[in-house]
Amino acid sequence: MSRVVVIGGDAAGATAASNLRRTLPEEHEVVVLERTDRTSYSACGIPYWIAGDVDSADDLVARTPEKHRENGIDLRTGVEVTAIDPEAGRLTLADGNPIDYDRLIIATGAEPLRPPLPGIDGRGILGVQSLADGQAVLDAMDQQPRHIVVVGSGYIGLEMAEACVARGFDTTVVEMADTPMPIVEPELGEQIADAMRARGIHLQASTPVTGFTLEDGQVTAVDIEGGSIPADLVILGLGVTARSALAADAGLPIGPKGSILVDQHQQVVGYDHIWAAGDCVASTDRITGDQVHLALGTHANKQGMVAADAIAADLLGVAPQVSFPGVVQTAITKFCSLEISRTGLGMQQAKDAGFDPVAASIVTTNIADYMPDAAEMTVLMIADRGTRRLLGAQIVGAEDAALRIDVAGTALAAGLTVDDVVMLDLAYAPPFGSVWSPVQVAARAVVKALDT
Amino acid sequence: MSRVVVIGGDAAGATAASNLRRTLPEEHEVVVLERTDRTSYSACGIPYWIAGDVDSADDLVARTPEKHRENGIDLRTGVEVTAIDPEAGRLTLADGNPIDYDRLIIATGAEPLRPPLPGIDGRGILGVQSLADGQAVLDAMDQQPRHIVVVGSGYIGLEMAEACVARGFDTTVVEMADTPMPIVEPELGEQIADAMRARGIHLQASTPVTGFTLEDGQVTAVDIEGGSIPADLVILGLGVTARSALAADAGLPIGPKGSILVDQHQQVVGYDHIWAAGDCVASTDRITGDQVHLALGTHANKQGMVAADAIAADLLGVAPQVSFPGVVQTAITKFCSLEISRTGLGMQQAKDAGFDPVAASIVTTNIADYMPDAAEMTVLMIADRGTRRLLGAQIVGAEDAALRIDVAGTALAAGLTVDDVVMLDLAYAPPFGSVWSPVQVAARAVVKALDT
Repeated sequence: MSRVVVIGGDAAGATAASNLRRTLPEEHEVVVLERTDRTSYSACGIPYWIAGDVDSADDLVARTPEKHRENGIDLRTGVEVTAIDPEAGRLTLADGNPIDYDRLIIATGAEPLRPPLPGIDGRGILGVQSLADGQAVLDAMDQQPRHIVVVGSGYIGLEMAEACVARGFDTTVVEMADTPMPIVEPELGEQIADAMRARGIHLQASTPVTGFTLEDGQVTAVDIEGGSIPADLVILGLGVTARSALAADAGLPIGPKGSILVDQHQQVVGYDHIWAAGDCVASTDRITGDQVHLALGTHANKQGMVAADAIAADLLGVAPQVSFPGVVQTAITKFCSLEISRTGLGMQQAKDAGFDPVAASIVTTNIADYMPDAAEMTVLMIADRGTRRLLGAQIVGAEDAALRIDVAGTALAAGLTVDDVVMLDLAYAPPFGSVWSPVQVAARAVVKALDT
Repeated sequence: MSRVVVIGGDAAGATAASNLRRTLPEEHEVVVLERTDRTSYSACGIPYWIAGDVDSADDLVARTPEKHRENGIDLRTGVEVTAIDPEAGRLTLADGNPIDYDRLIIATGAEPLRPPLPGIDGRGILGVQSLADGQAVLDAMDQQPRHIVVVGSGYIGLEMAEACVARGFDTTVVEMADTPMPIVEPELGEQIADAMRARGIHLQASTPVTGFTLEDGQVTAVDIEGGSIPADLVILGLGVTARSALAADAGLPIGPKGSILVDQHQQVVGYDHIWAAGDCVASTDRITGDQVHLALGTHANKQGMVAADAIAADLLGVAPQVSFPGVVQTAITKFCSLEISRTGLGMQQAKDAGFDPVAASIVTTNIADYMPDAAEMTVLMIADRGTRRLLGAQIVGAEDAALRIDVAGTALAAGLTVDDVVMLDLAYAPPFGSVWSPVQVAARAVVKALDT
């Protein structure tokens, strides 16, 4: 018999453990060591819980520790691992006890970026990553803060800002870049800025935060160049970094944003008995081949599945059945009724990767323009001049706009050209769009730009 | 100089003419001969006009004859072509006059199937294909029919039935197959049947129509085996056949449902100076390689573009830039709040084409299950056992369900396997779905079915 130990019981870890438990004969042990008292929850749902759309944290939990135990997993909560000894195949726990493993999966997740700014550790400066973080924000809101400042306007910043105004709080968003949501091009970011202002959010773009003013350890203002913004609650939406100190301390290979480097079977590069999955690992960008760090539940679930498959194959002496091909950096969010999505490379990313990118953007309607409630959407698309290969797409628009990004995401994975996209057989009926799908209208615009 | 003549001024014809006018130097003539007094309209919008969602037929017109003329097209309405002489490069018009062409595009469209049943030519038995047809239905509705019977429950039948009940008419749908919308598998068809009944439509499935009872030439009942259904207005929703008598009479090659056979540049097979596009032509199924007849605006627009490109290239002595790669039989519609879509092959189609199809279906939610208003959707997916290649997908479900079929449509065009689909990087955020996209949940179910 063997013992597989999984560090972390959220998306990647719990998925891996569940799959292993289903696949491996009973004599193999599957142990999950989870720091907190929660497993398998939707961190992405936290802003909607804070906004009041979702009643309780429990609603965000897909599978409780009890449920995992019923399924035969030796799931231990409140257990923190403090060291990995890859030579010995042994973990040290916070209580000083060791636990041996035959195979290890590291699924320690990510944590909100906290740049080393003066005052960052003050009370009332909160990240949003775990359910405990979410509860801390709700508790802080119960104190009726007069001014909330969200630092950063990526999707977490945007979703949290919406939640704050939905709860009736005076809310300011501070963004270093010239437009919000810097993972879309500025011309689309302008539309997001308009929507934020229309919702009553104070947006301060082009504004780097220099520090935080504290009184008795409690934040009272966010400092910016030449001034400050009053704030009794600050929410950090600056993105995340891999929670990989444990792996780094053990000498495991580390890539961008602290992410652990793995192969396509999620095996840690250079380590025979250690796999890693989820928000703590690097993924291969399918377009550039580069290692990137993208902490998203979609990747975590797939990677957990792949790691479990690889370990089961290893223990049972068969060939693995699946591998993780990498990502194309698809992302989606919603700000009030404005939907936002992107996939692939942006213009700067494409240039940095050595492509000769050509972009075009178009405005069309989400449904046939003669139908009631037709509303506008903008699609921007990028292709490589030489190969005409699709490199990326971005959408901002009304209801039913953003999910269309999945056509581009699929096309990117398949390596299609923009000419191929123009000729796809996509669904059309008046309640769903116009005869040329918005993504194809954009592809035609790029083709035109390429041909002139 | 040359003269390009286009027969038909709707989607394919008008698109071709517009593109030619933009591409060709002025000395080349572009003539469009249109039978009716309308051009470039959305036939797909007719049910929504009849339902009252769209105010007038004019709203469905994308470009009027006047507008086409302003753009430099010699567009002639009310002109019917009665014969093509490919040898002489000459058309005969209904008024007896000839018109010569250097290059010809046939874009004569399709017409509703009218099976040779007793009484089919009675008054009050109407197809729905042109704006004139739509007006005829509206005029008939003004007579306050007591019972409307829709024969056939494909998407036109379904949309028209919804329009009839929306207008308050007692409506029966008669369908020969056991479940409505036979282009989806019966298990999904059952859900459509439930939705129809819930909306108050009388559905008679498994019921072939044997004829029509007329009184003084006016329909009074639809005859079925062993009985009849009272009807003072009958709407035919039996699909369409290519309007290709003109082409057939001239000896041009004809394929399924009267469709004209063309190559990937829309050139009529075996004819140097004749192209054809839109609802009157056959298309290549990209999965089977078979010729199929699918009368849809999406194909018509692309084919018109391709035909124009080929003719311009021919006249200007350059290489054509685009070609039509064929279709994957994507279709979408909506019945009240139930969305329905499909792409690729159904089980029987797959077997007929020599595949060994394996299907699986799953039920999931359209948005994250903990979000307000989450509702159910069913996704059925089919793959080939030997190659694991995706063969088709079908979706029936709540709002925001059906457009996800485009992921499968794109994957089919790219020849992806179901394993590839599982690993696609698709958009996820709680307001848009669950961490595994519905299409991927179905793909995983097919993978499981393939592996057991």
